[in-house]
Amino acid sequence: MHNNKPSIGIIGATGFTGSELARLLCQHPEITIKHITSETHKGKLFSDLHPQFMGILDQELESADVIDQSDVDVLFLALPHGVSMDFIKRWEHKNCKIIDLSGDFRLSTPEIYKTWYQKDHIFTKGFESAVYGQPELFADQIKGSSLVANPGCYPTASILSLAPLFVGGLIEKDTVIIDAKSGLTGAGVKASDTTHFSNVNENFKAYGLGVHRHTVEIEEQFSILGKQEIQVQFTPHLLPVDRGILVTAYAKTTKKLDQESLGKIYHDFYEGKPFVRLRKSAPGIKDVRGSHYCDIYPFWDERTNRVIVISAIDNLLKGAASQAVHNMNLMLGYEEKTGLEQIPLRP
Amino acid sequence: MHNNKPSIGIIGATGFTGSELARLLCQHPEITIKHITSETHKGKLFSDLHPQFMGILDQELESADVIDQSDVDVLFLALPHGVSMDFIKRWEHKNCKIIDLSGDFRLSTPEIYKTWYQKDHIFTKGFESAVYGQPELFADQIKGSSLVANPGCYPTASILSLAPLFVGGLIEKDTVIIDAKSGLTGAGVKASDTTHFSNVNENFKAYGLGVHRHTVEIEEQFSILGKQEIQVQFTPHLLPVDRGILVTAYAKTTKKLDQESLGKIYHDFYEGKPFVRLRKSAPGIKDVRGSHYCDIYPFWDERTNRVIVISAIDNLLKGAASQAVHNMNLMLGYEEKTGLEQIPLRP
Amino acid sequence: MHNNKPSIGIIGATGFTGSELARLLCQHPEITIKHITSETHKGKLFSDLHPQFMGILDQELESADVIDQSDVDVLFLALPHGVSMDFIKRWEHKNCKIIDLSGDFRLSTPEIYKTWYQKDHIFTKGFESAVYGQPELFADQIKGSSLVANPGCYPTASILSLAPLFVGGLIEKDTVIIDAKSGLTGAGVKASDTTHFSNVNENFKAYGLGVHRHTVEIEEQFSILGKQEIQVQFTPHLLPVDRGILVTAYAKTTKKLDQESLGKIYHDFYEGKPFVRLRKSAPGIKDVRGSHYCDIYPFWDERTNRVIVISAIDNLLKGAASQAVHNMNLMLGYEEKTGLEQIPLRP
Amino acid sequence: MHNNKPSIGIIGATGFTGSELARLLCQHPEITIKHITSETHKGKLFSDLHPQFMGILDQELESADVIDQSDVDVLFLALPHGVSMDFIKRWEHKNCKIIDLSGDFRLSTPEIYKTWYQKDHIFTKGFESAVYGQPELFADQIKGSSLVANPGCYPTASILSLAPLFVGGLIEKDTVIIDAKSGLTGAGVKASDTTHFSNVNENFKAYGLGVHRHTVEIEEQFSILGKQEIQVQFTPHLLPVDRGILVTAYAKTTKKLDQESLGKIYHDFYEGKPFVRLRKSAPGIKDVRGSHYCDIYPFWDERTNRVIVISAIDNLLKGAASQAVHNMNLMLGYEEKTGLEQIPLRP
Repeated sequence: MHNNKPSIGIIGATGFTGSELARLLCQHPEITIKHITSETHKGKLFSDLHPQFMGILDQELESADVIDQSDVDVLFLALPHGVSMDFIKRWEHKNCKIIDLSGDFRLSTPEIYKTWYQKDHIFTKGFESAVYGQPELFADQIKGSSLVANPGCYPTASILSLAPLFVGGLIEKDTVIIDAKSGLTGAGVKASDTTHFSNVNENFKAYGLGVHRHTVEIEEQFSILGKQEIQVQFTPHLLPVDRGILVTAYAKTTKKLDQESLGKIYHDFYEGKPFVRLRKSAPGIKDVRGSHYCDIYPFWDERTNRVIVISAIDNLLKGAASQAVHNMNLMLGYEEKTGLEQIPLRP
Repeated sequence: MHNNKPSIGIIGATGFTGSELARLLCQHPEITIKHITSETHKGKLFSDLHPQFMGILDQELESADVIDQSDVDVLFLALPHGVSMDFIKRWEHKNCKIIDLSGDFRLSTPEIYKTWYQKDHIFTKGFESAVYGQPELFADQIKGSSLVANPGCYPTASILSLAPLFVGGLIEKDTVIIDAKSGLTGAGVKASDTTHFSNVNENFKAYGLGVHRHTVEIEEQFSILGKQEIQVQFTPHLLPVDRGILVTAYAKTTKKLDQESLGKIYHDFYEGKPFVRLRKSAPGIKDVRGSHYCDIYPFWDERTNRVIVISAIDNLLKGAASQAVHNMNLMLGYEEKTGLEQIPLRP
Repeated sequence: MHNNKPSIGIIGATGFTGSELARLLCQHPEITIKHITSETHKGKLFSDLHPQFMGILDQELESADVIDQSDVDVLFLALPHGVSMDFIKRWEHKNCKIIDLSGDFRLSTPEIYKTWYQKDHIFTKGFESAVYGQPELFADQIKGSSLVANPGCYPTASILSLAPLFVGGLIEKDTVIIDAKSGLTGAGVKASDTTHFSNVNENFKAYGLGVHRHTVEIEEQFSILGKQEIQVQFTPHLLPVDRGILVTAYAKTTKKLDQESLGKIYHDFYEGKPFVRLRKSAPGIKDVRGSHYCDIYPFWDERTNRVIVISAIDNLLKGAASQAVHNMNLMLGYEEKTGLEQIPLRP
Repeated sequence: MHNNKPSIGIIGATGFTGSELARLLCQHPEITIKHITSETHKGKLFSDLHPQFMGILDQELESADVIDQSDVDVLFLALPHGVSMDFIKRWEHKNCKIIDLSGDFRLSTPEIYKTWYQKDHIFTKGFESAVYGQPELFADQIKGSSLVANPGCYPTASILSLAPLFVGGLIEKDTVIIDAKSGLTGAGVKASDTTHFSNVNENFKAYGLGVHRHTVEIEEQFSILGKQEIQVQFTPHLLPVDRGILVTAYAKTTKKLDQESLGKIYHDFYEGKPFVRLRKSAPGIKDVRGSHYCDIYPFWDERTNRVIVISAIDNLLKGAASQAVHNMNLMLGYEEKTGLEQIPLRP
């Protein structure tokens, strides 16, 4: 019987992060999925919507209204930006932990939110309690939190790529350039010109130059880690693959390093972090596909005295769903790796 | 401690089936991997060869010679056709069970082997004991066997597509056409013109017309199931994807059916087979990717009075590695699904 | 000056066939593009819609209304099925030749159209004059026609694959199976779940089992060629590539052939047809990409006494736009190859 | 008759640039292909090697020895780095123009060549006469040259992205970062782990960090244009597509610009250059596929006061074969666009 296990609700089952959450959680040994909701598809089975789950997760989809009256221990909100906050406000007084996969509580203030998301925030109180859910950096705060803002996919790969140097005070201000590349699932499940096969396949392009919302999320976290205001140049690109983010991060350092000293900084910083793997050469996105790993390769260019860090994640997992489960593990007091030991699927 | 669990050896770690076996077996709850061998890479770590396993499976690769002196309970041979038989002969008197993923013991006689594989068989005695390891059809024989010939990838998808009709005596002789399409991993890990990205990507073609070795493997199994000599027209094609086989099987039947009666035949036949999923519409290969499922959709065309069956598998799993683990489960007396509950990775 | 050259209108510029027509026609040496129309995008430049044409074809898009008052020699209708007939009726009395790329006039009667297209035909008179525009088969009729129904993409590859055998009276009735595979552009430019990258990429599936509209188009043409009523089993599949159709056609013959006699039949039939290339092994779709070729490989299976024919085309060109230009060349009395000598783009 | 047209030899027919040269040159109106050579495949037809050319270019492949005794006007050397120089030395006294597609004469001195190519140069005299064949920058020198070093693919896209700013003296020293991404054909036709489909497909990774040979080629050209020694950070990545390079170039400027002034600089610089297209938003590689265009989008980031320039080319064409033909047009006195008006193939 699952009766004594914490019960979980997944709010929003249509998108990629919703289905990935379900994939991870229905095999998680310590919890039980009580509700999966979808306003559009309520009444259908989860496996009607996602046929790969046939015979595995045939649970009926419900309206999110069911949560109002239901005891659940943890809610995962896999909803669009600007929609999530409505539900978090609505369930403010519920006695449950919330992990929000949208961008609604990732930034520091409602004003900054409005600037980058072009929308008034309707639950500004949430900013007081929300914790930024990057487990490698803020595990202690996450453990005690009831509202975790799950980091964005690009920010996860970007922040982890340079965190050791920012924390070490080693980054020369305003030299950081993050050239990031994401698989198409980052654009979401909705059919559009952007997601049309013929616009993606055999193609590659930059988008959101200078204005992408993840820029400020990265800058805020680097500013916290570096203890000064940091500006980054962030450029996302769209890869003709389903999954994966590769970040190529460039920075000048405040003192000359070499490959060995650089490697040591990263090794010391990430020791004991089970999901960061320090690589000896540049990783590819396929090395982490389907898994919770972030593979990082820091490189010191002797010729230019610049550091280049390559980091690779699966945008739907370490960049979304598995990071959310990781946060849940911390919030509920489980071992970090519980339910997250999937091995990358390659080829 | 793993000491009391059956110990396993994986012979041949370089190829795709070797690494997939390792992925499944290192998470299998009932066994322990004792040896992984590679003549080319002995001394390296498994994760040097397959970096996605870094921190997960860093076991040292050994020469296959180590097996001569080692107690192991089960050996998986992930070797090329024509090489496997050397080792099976060599280890004839070892007290261990062998699951051979090559084609060396799949056919009925050494003579037929020679005709289709253009090579003399050097261990004809093996044919006496080898069992064809299709768990949905021959579970009882597999349970008692010490040498299982793991079915080919195309044969698995092909045989499962029409088995219910052959067993039911419903196939009109010589009307079977199997038009099959496989992802590139079916061509193996070796670099060649065939596997060069630019020959595969955005391309699609038929190959092996009239002469592909899997033809006779399919025919032999259908002949057994149908209790008469069966000839099939089998045409493989190469898909520009990593994983997956889709079979489109056509046949005339000995009596007129309809969609409902056809569906019932399949339902009855596959009831209790945990890895065959009968679908209500045509499956895609991505619905089973990374999993042990075979998704099948039988369709009756009222206009032409012909049956069309679509079946989809992951060629590296149900078509190779997970089927081998399934066979091991049967041979060692475990529940069929043990260690095989991976959910398809989609998208 | 272009003044004395025949003037052309392309009706419908949004879709893939519209832009491919423009690509071919703006480099055709004998004609001039007078109008390109789009109701949705009128007023924009063609290159706003299709940026690859920037600096090449910056012509302004007009409403189709402009055609009412304009002298044009040839109109290409690149419109959806069921929309084309409205315009053909409207321009019935215009003194111009029409090449219709939709399915509206490909079938023999309005009744059959209604059965397969689920729509009443509003211009039944057009059936009297419409010629089926397969240049390799009906060049004489096309030359004298004012209304050409440009063949469907699947029918083109299918018909050419078996035409020599049907014309020779060599096909055994009701043994024809056409297993066809198409790139995604066959599904059109419109964003939908079907065309979403993540549903196509790394995927492969059958669709339209038993009911695809091209079935009847193929059957009608085979019936004409074979001088008896022919039924075919036609199954389309969706390939994760942009362009290309590969047909694998199976048939029993009324007399035993061999590879040599089969090859001779094809050679004799296609002699002098500049765009059919008889290959000595199975072609891939990339061998014809971006070109007007249909590559065909007829294979006689000695073991099964069955013929297998592989044919490959670019669905947007030989399966649509370049075939339309080929028809125009015939209708205007130009040499067949005029403007159609693009070499396949590979890799 | 072709007798009076200049005659051409293509040395090295096996690789992608060899076949692309043939594709362009066999349709070039002003020249005739006299020889195509391949040591490995001499005696075969060109179309045996590249079946897409069947019926189009069935010319017999010869040994390069034939050139010793043959009058040809232009030789295209499509050979590996380090091999080309042997032939250029051998044919030093032939009265013909040579366009070398290798890297053997792109750098300024034999010493720098040795440092980056790890090989002694055996024909140092060639450096005196070789002209760097970037038509947008050095048309006058190219016109008078007998030995043109055709630029590398990455350098072409990189140099054109920032040339207007370097020439204008606007780049702040040592701030240039070039994050470049190339399709797989850049890795060549040879089968290897690098080019194996399963290592490329659904993957993406950086390579050659800090040591890629194109770094020095870019730096030398920028130093010439900028009239001071320039260092760049250049990082290449491998895209899972056949064709295309996208460069994302970052730089600080010596004075504050804005989008308008930046655009004007590029507009003035590239006016009259028929193959550079200035775009109003970020181009994708598919916008130029199969064509000789370089699409450029310069962007001024008001927030960071940094310039970002995106440039896109087809690596096999503008990055190799069509640029070589462009150079030939200049060397032979033809209009620049002769034979190079292919429209991008999209989708």
